Amino acid sequence: MKVGDTHYRSIWFDGEAGRVRIIDQRWLPHEFRVVEIESLDEFATAIRDMWVRGAPLIGATAAYGIAMEMHRNASDAALDAAWELLHETRPTAINLRWALEEMRQVLAPLSEGERAAVAFRKAAEICDADVETNRMIGVHGLDLVKQIAATKKPGEPVNILTHCNAGWLATVDWGTATSPMYHAVQAGIPIHVWVDETRPRNQGAQLTAWEMNSHGIPHHLLTDNAGGHLMQHGQVDMVIVGTDRTTALGDVCNKIGTYLKALAAQDNDVPFYVALPSSTIDWTVEDGVREIPIEERDDREVTHVFGRLDNGSVTSVQISPDGTPGGNPAFDVTPARLVTGLITERGVAEASREGLLGLFPERRSAA
Amino acid sequence: MKVGDTHYRSIWFDGEAGRVRIIDQRWLPHEFRVVEIESLDEFATAIRDMWVRGAPLIGATAAYGIAMEMHRNASDAALDAAWELLHETRPTAINLRWALEEMRQVLAPLSEGERAAVAFRKAAEICDADVETNRMIGVHGLDLVKQIAATKKPGEPVNILTHCNAGWLATVDWGTATSPMYHAVQAGIPIHVWVDETRPRNQGAQLTAWEMNSHGIPHHLLTDNAGGHLMQHGQVDMVIVGTDRTTALGDVCNKIGTYLKALAAQDNDVPFYVALPSSTIDWTVEDGVREIPIEERDDREVTHVFGRLDNGSVTSVQISPDGTPGGNPAFDVTPARLVTGLITERGVAEASREGLLGLFPERRSAA
Repeated sequence: MKVGDTHYRSIWFDGEAGRVRIIDQRWLPHEFRVVEIESLDEFATAIRDMWVRGAPLIGATAAYGIAMEMHRNASDAALDAAWELLHETRPTAINLRWALEEMRQVLAPLSEGERAAVAFRKAAEICDADVETNRMIGVHGLDLVKQIAATKKPGEPVNILTHCNAGWLATVDWGTATSPMYHAVQAGIPIHVWVDETRPRNQGAQLTAWEMNSHGIPHHLLTDNAGGHLMQHGQVDMVIVGTDRTTALGDVCNKIGTYLKALAAQDNDVPFYVALPSSTIDWTVEDGVREIPIEERDDREVTHVFGRLDNGSVTSVQISPDGTPGGNPAFDVTPARLVTGLITERGVAEASREGLLGLFPERRSAA
Repeated sequence: MKVGDTHYRSIWFDGEAGRVRIIDQRWLPHEFRVVEIESLDEFATAIRDMWVRGAPLIGATAAYGIAMEMHRNASDAALDAAWELLHETRPTAINLRWALEEMRQVLAPLSEGERAAVAFRKAAEICDADVETNRMIGVHGLDLVKQIAATKKPGEPVNILTHCNAGWLATVDWGTATSPMYHAVQAGIPIHVWVDETRPRNQGAQLTAWEMNSHGIPHHLLTDNAGGHLMQHGQVDMVIVGTDRTTALGDVCNKIGTYLKALAAQDNDVPFYVALPSSTIDWTVEDGVREIPIEERDDREVTHVFGRLDNGSVTSVQISPDGTPGGNPAFDVTPARLVTGLITERGVAEASREGLLGLFPERRSAA
């Protein structure tokens, strides 16, 4: 999406320069740095050290990492070594493994001379497919925004609350939860976005607020505590969040704190939507609260906050006393009963087995 | 309560030195600074600039400010001027006005020669009355902790979640929400406290965590997002929070985010208690959500976070992009239907008009 007047994707191949460029997201929102990554080690570092993050973007980066390596050395040994090196950067990222497998399956049968060109084409396809998926999420989500806009006075914005960053920075473009917002802006529907800061890592404050700011979308940053109060007072028309994993029954596992906003939405009759590419649906899991293991992360994320000093340098400050340990569950599960609808690339589904199977009938036989 | 091996109140009069001492809370949790305040300007500064905070402690500080002034100049003019200067430090603090009125009513009829001694006695009484109120809240809250402890295996702690700082630092001693915790420790009942950091001002991370740490109570700091997930997984046995204002029907207005925890508690059958001195009950208000105006504070509290750098200096960092505004409602209202019980100095009441009038029957005629 836009940064000022320029349209960016989160990753792109500059064919003339023969270089892959990414936004080094570690410095956002304080600095907008575009960097070139070329060697396999640079790709591995970019993924491992979270210069790029978000499942779709990690997959796209890995795909280009393979392509760049094939350009240098298209041997079977190089392909296998690149696959291994990139895979172990974030071994639990399902989308990373999926993208690497896509690349290997296409490349392995080819001769060495054919591999580089096909690899770049395939990496571009993976990127474009992500963009198209997210675009369709936005098209379907736009209908929901339009329905609410129709109940408003002319010019009055639709107030949308979101949590964490399910934005274009986490994908190749459009984002998932943000795609309906960008589509609404494109359609001339006035919106205003409430951005939860999303402690502990503050992806809302750092990334979503930066996206809104950069694209020129009216927004306010909120503490994670404030959304319920705003809903009690009619200041939120709808919630749209993303999800890392969606169960076959429509439970959604998303960034910690999502569940609290879903409870507040239900208590105040605010529609609560979850935007997702169907690739996040785990058809093997039903009860998210009982079945999905939740990652417990380093408690330094809780005891410290990252930000910018007045002198412009970026650093972390400790907010708590020495000796106080932190608890840091990274995700929570919002039961399907609290979800108004799942916005997928095929349309909006009720958060239930029947709802999902209605959009993905090919899964009926498997179920 | 304890700081290491020493018992402290948040304010005390050192009779030998003729000095009032307070804990300068601006530096917590990073530095424990006890300071003397003597001149009327110092008292006003301590209240205005939040060296002390919390309704009961503000009132106690103002009372001692009057007493110290009477020691220097016990004229009517000095009494009036001190009243005015102290009152305008935080003009919306009801407890501040109440304490100043108490002092004036006692002192005004007296001769100048009698005023200083009576003023010190009265200020001490105000402090002791607060301590006794909070002690009784703890005695009644302890019964609730004991009931839960009785359902546990021997040695297994009662897990209590709290939000913000309704601790001894906000009162003269014991605190309100923390008083049952300190009483449980005193009674040998093992507890473990989940401390919400309480953005934007992080009173949980800075003050409650410091209290727990200083008194040696097992605890973990949490982001405000985490409590719902912990409740889903049986890791919270009860919630105890404070309140700034309680309506005649039992709605409670407390630090922003309290409502979200109450929703999660209800959704997971976790008892949700609110601890309060009866002075916070506003018998003139019924529907808290509709009737209580919520203070909107400076958005710098949302866009910036205060903490300690690795080099030990304390400062603020900006977490969001330049140009992103913040929304900062400071309180929210938790409807009585979500409150399991109100722990007062007279006992535990159901959060309803009948519940409150049962404990405070003298209010029946007024109602």
